[in-house]
Amino acid sequence: MTNTKPISRWPVPDIADMPADIRARVAEVQDKAGFVPNVFLTLAHRPDEFRAFFAYHDALMLRDSGLTKGEREMIVVATSGVNDCVYCVVAHGAILRVYEKNPLVADQVAVNYRKADITPRQRAMLAFALKVATDSASIEPGDFEPLRAHGFSDEDIWDIGAIAAFFALSNRMANMISMRPNEEFFLLGRLPRASK
Amino acid sequence: MTNTKPISRWPVPDIADMPADIRARVAEVQDKAGFVPNVFLTLAHRPDEFRAFFAYHDALMLRDSGLTKGEREMIVVATSGVNDCVYCVVAHGAILRVYEKNPLVADQVAVNYRKADITPRQRAMLAFALKVATDSASIEPGDFEPLRAHGFSDEDIWDIGAIAAFFALSNRMANMISMRPNEEFFLLGRLPRASK
Amino acid sequence: MTNTKPISRWPVPDIADMPADIRARVAEVQDKAGFVPNVFLTLAHRPDEFRAFFAYHDALMLRDSGLTKGEREMIVVATSGVNDCVYCVVAHGAILRVYEKNPLVADQVAVNYRKADITPRQRAMLAFALKVATDSASIEPGDFEPLRAHGFSDEDIWDIGAIAAFFALSNRMANMISMRPNEEFFLLGRLPRASK
Amino acid sequence: MTNTKPISRWPVPDIADMPADIRARVAEVQDKAGFVPNVFLTLAHRPDEFRAFFAYHDALMLRDSGLTKGEREMIVVATSGVNDCVYCVVAHGAILRVYEKNPLVADQVAVNYRKADITPRQRAMLAFALKVATDSASIEPGDFEPLRAHGFSDEDIWDIGAIAAFFALSNRMANMISMRPNEEFFLLGRLPRASK
Amino acid sequence: MTNTKPISRWPVPDIADMPADIRARVAEVQDKAGFVPNVFLTLAHRPDEFRAFFAYHDALMLRDSGLTKGEREMIVVATSGVNDCVYCVVAHGAILRVYEKNPLVADQVAVNYRKADITPRQRAMLAFALKVATDSASIEPGDFEPLRAHGFSDEDIWDIGAIAAFFALSNRMANMISMRPNEEFFLLGRLPRASK
Amino acid sequence: MTNTKPISRWPVPDIADMPADIRARVAEVQDKAGFVPNVFLTLAHRPDEFRAFFAYHDALMLRDSGLTKGEREMIVVATSGVNDCVYCVVAHGAILRVYEKNPLVADQVAVNYRKADITPRQRAMLAFALKVATDSASIEPGDFEPLRAHGFSDEDIWDIGAIAAFFALSNRMANMISMRPNEEFFLLGRLPRASK
Repeated sequence: MTNTKPISRWPVPDIADMPADIRARVAEVQDKAGFVPNVFLTLAHRPDEFRAFFAYHDALMLRDSGLTKGEREMIVVATSGVNDCVYCVVAHGAILRVYEKNPLVADQVAVNYRKADITPRQRAMLAFALKVATDSASIEPGDFEPLRAHGFSDEDIWDIGAIAAFFALSNRMANMISMRPNEEFFLLGRLPRASK
Repeated sequence: MTNTKPISRWPVPDIADMPADIRARVAEVQDKAGFVPNVFLTLAHRPDEFRAFFAYHDALMLRDSGLTKGEREMIVVATSGVNDCVYCVVAHGAILRVYEKNPLVADQVAVNYRKADITPRQRAMLAFALKVATDSASIEPGDFEPLRAHGFSDEDIWDIGAIAAFFALSNRMANMISMRPNEEFFLLGRLPRASK
Repeated sequence: MTNTKPISRWPVPDIADMPADIRARVAEVQDKAGFVPNVFLTLAHRPDEFRAFFAYHDALMLRDSGLTKGEREMIVVATSGVNDCVYCVVAHGAILRVYEKNPLVADQVAVNYRKADITPRQRAMLAFALKVATDSASIEPGDFEPLRAHGFSDEDIWDIGAIAAFFALSNRMANMISMRPNEEFFLLGRLPRASK
Repeated sequence: MTNTKPISRWPVPDIADMPADIRARVAEVQDKAGFVPNVFLTLAHRPDEFRAFFAYHDALMLRDSGLTKGEREMIVVATSGVNDCVYCVVAHGAILRVYEKNPLVADQVAVNYRKADITPRQRAMLAFALKVATDSASIEPGDFEPLRAHGFSDEDIWDIGAIAAFFALSNRMANMISMRPNEEFFLLGRLPRASK
Repeated sequence: MTNTKPISRWPVPDIADMPADIRARVAEVQDKAGFVPNVFLTLAHRPDEFRAFFAYHDALMLRDSGLTKGEREMIVVATSGVNDCVYCVVAHGAILRVYEKNPLVADQVAVNYRKADITPRQRAMLAFALKVATDSASIEPGDFEPLRAHGFSDEDIWDIGAIAAFFALSNRMANMISMRPNEEFFLLGRLPRASK
Repeated sequence: MTNTKPISRWPVPDIADMPADIRARVAEVQDKAGFVPNVFLTLAHRPDEFRAFFAYHDALMLRDSGLTKGEREMIVVATSGVNDCVYCVVAHGAILRVYEKNPLVADQVAVNYRKADITPRQRAMLAFALKVATDSASIEPGDFEPLRAHGFSDEDIWDIGAIAAFFALSNRMANMISMRPNEEFFLLGRLPRASK
């Protein structure tokens, strides 16, 4: 499927013209996913910001944490949903489906996490993440209590809030540059493994 | 003036216990500013995120740009104002006063940029930054027109939006951890040089 | 795939216990779609309201109109997106994909129609539909002008607004009763015909 | 008092040209009320939608219910107030005054039900109705508890929410077509019976 | 008609116990209106604030102005409507009906001035008043242009905005103390003179 | 420092041309503060409104009260912050610093009182004041309970709400006329006494 629609409002560099470290990162994700998610191409327009962006992303999304990788993607999808970010909802929705091996949860969480097939603990996690995303100035000590009641440690809570904060940045960049999701993401994780 | 109020809801590492590169960064800012802004201490709780955060910050705030450093700080102060972030309004307000050699502009921009002593070009810049901060999903091609009419290049516009996006992250982190501004910031840049 | 999750907060009648006309409608949709969308089961709890609901639905969605059936579903998906209605986004997203033979458009329109692969005329249509959905009291004569400029007749405009208004009802009912979308909808229209 | 102001932005059919069943409905309401409320004239522009609209209305407003007819009109007036619908506030305000034999309650409920001369049970009813009207996506199990504490059955709660949902539709149609209330409604129910 | 409902959450002084100047003012309004509007009783709880309140009120509402007294009451009713103030909508709605000799206009303006039987000039006046009431920080030079185009002088514009500002105070006080409107207001100005 | 920027969008009278009582008031504040705050000059454009404004102000801000003068200024600064009023934040921020002999508290309260160095009692006071400022229609008996728990009397609560209400007026006037704060205010109260 060829996509001739622009993937950014700004110029997108050819892979061949990217700095070596960025080219290596692009090659790595291409190997792993079978395609290059557009965020790696569009943000390469600014190599230093690219490097910081993915360093930050990896620091939060790959670290050892009391949150599973699927739970971290739930935070991304829920907060990207309230920020109306097409790229992030579609791309991270796909990743969420894959991690959770659940074809339904991404659409549920993107639209209204209260109706999603998730645990009460995950619901408390998303309620806090959405407060960080939409009304962080009102956070008070009482907001931490339901999280602790569900067994989240202080480090887990930092993770929840920091992921919500990082995607506050990411959603705004994607919306500003009108980043287009790769078509591959729309179907990813929706089919049983065998039929893929 | 000794401050015994906590500067974060999370543990703050002793400088001696920080990784060498972070310690070096702390020493550098201490040399330059005469004190260590609390953001360097509180975020050091997570070294990898600290490194990514300041790499991102520097990529945006130190690069060659069509925006002056003062204009970049205006964006920080205006967007931190709508996000009700005490740390960022106070700390970046101080930096803005210093860069602009103007003791009034930070308080004006923090409360309502429409009443600030800035140029029409700077007003257009802040209107766009605030749209990125508060309603990025509604950005449409028409939003770029007033910026271009004021002579901003596409790279300048990326800078405006990316700074607003980066401080969307920063404000949310500061609000979540309840980051306290150093007392030095409150007065900085308010007095004529001689009397300091 | 068996679903044992409740599909409504209220009792759901057995098909065998439904009045004959409703049973016939259920049989008809079962024949056509291969499954019974949950809205037909959950709303059957109140037969008179069921009849009025589907009579209204059919009057709007099946009538001869200057809007294609796909365009009408775009209105449903866009307004259900702003109302955070999981059932309507998922179920009507599926129908939209089928009508438009486009696996991408539903997710785009549900999150942010400004980024969707639709025509400028359709974009004007959705802008008006969203104003009816979210701020109908502010509608003024000027709101009709972009629609007329795109060739919409007064009857077409009634259709746009009436569909947005009808799903204002539908979204609220689905949210109140916590109507669960059938799992079939999530994948429908996402695959090329042949592979289904 | 002759009113020559338009009652809709769309064409309004002559009664003589309406289908027989609609003409009959119009005659019936004329007999009962002494005048034809404009909603019967303006919506007759679309006979199928007219039939579904009034079937839905009657199913909710005339059924046996744990809510009195006056209470149902309170829901209409309160939700139409937040939706800024002049027709519905004025017309249903009149009906509310008549049912409740209370010349004050409609204006109170339309502006702020918290200050109205109603029972705590009715106040809980309106709080839920307004949540359905303005924020149905956030409805959670806890929202049902105050209603049950006041003795509302599950069927009563459906009625409350369904009336709020139906008038979400009705308010949006009236606002879009700029439906004008009959002048008779403004005074109806404000005077003691004898003086009418 | 005796009203035993409290008219304020705070103590209401007996008229006999009020300072002489306030008692005189109460007597004057009693003579003129035939009853004492509750605002004169409830605010007398604080004599100095009472005096300043009515001095301000009179300065705005009684002065020579390019706005008629009816137009000034339109501003009160429209802004009190968006502030959901039962006392002010009901009491000033009555005064508006009397001044305009129009039994319909108050209910129209209170719910949605866009649908009211008023002139385009009055509509521009209310649009500006509502901006002062709800979003004064965004007022920019461009907001004055439609007013000037309709012939409002700078002094008239001050009147529009100052009345909106004064009732921002008044609405908040009435809401906080839960000021109850006199029952007389509900009917006032709704009947032709002769039948009163 | 000479300021040639306009201090109002409306004409500002020369002091010599003001009525004697207003001139006296201006002289008094000049003596006390060492300069004439611009609110005394800009509002003198309308002498009667000037008199009522300052009578109201003094009645609230100078009366014996369970609130200290510093606490009353906290209310002004917090509510002016949410109303984005540059004049009131800057001018009353200065007064707050002076009364509290605290160079930090004004900036904290203006941006987010939850992070300010104030007592829990003062935090409850500001939470109520902000509800009066932003959502007075929702005030219910329960809103008074935390205030009483902190020992505020009914008269104290009136003071809190009335100050918030008065500055609702003041902020809107200042925003409409674009009242410019005197440059003296920006630094006032920021330095230890000795160095002034």
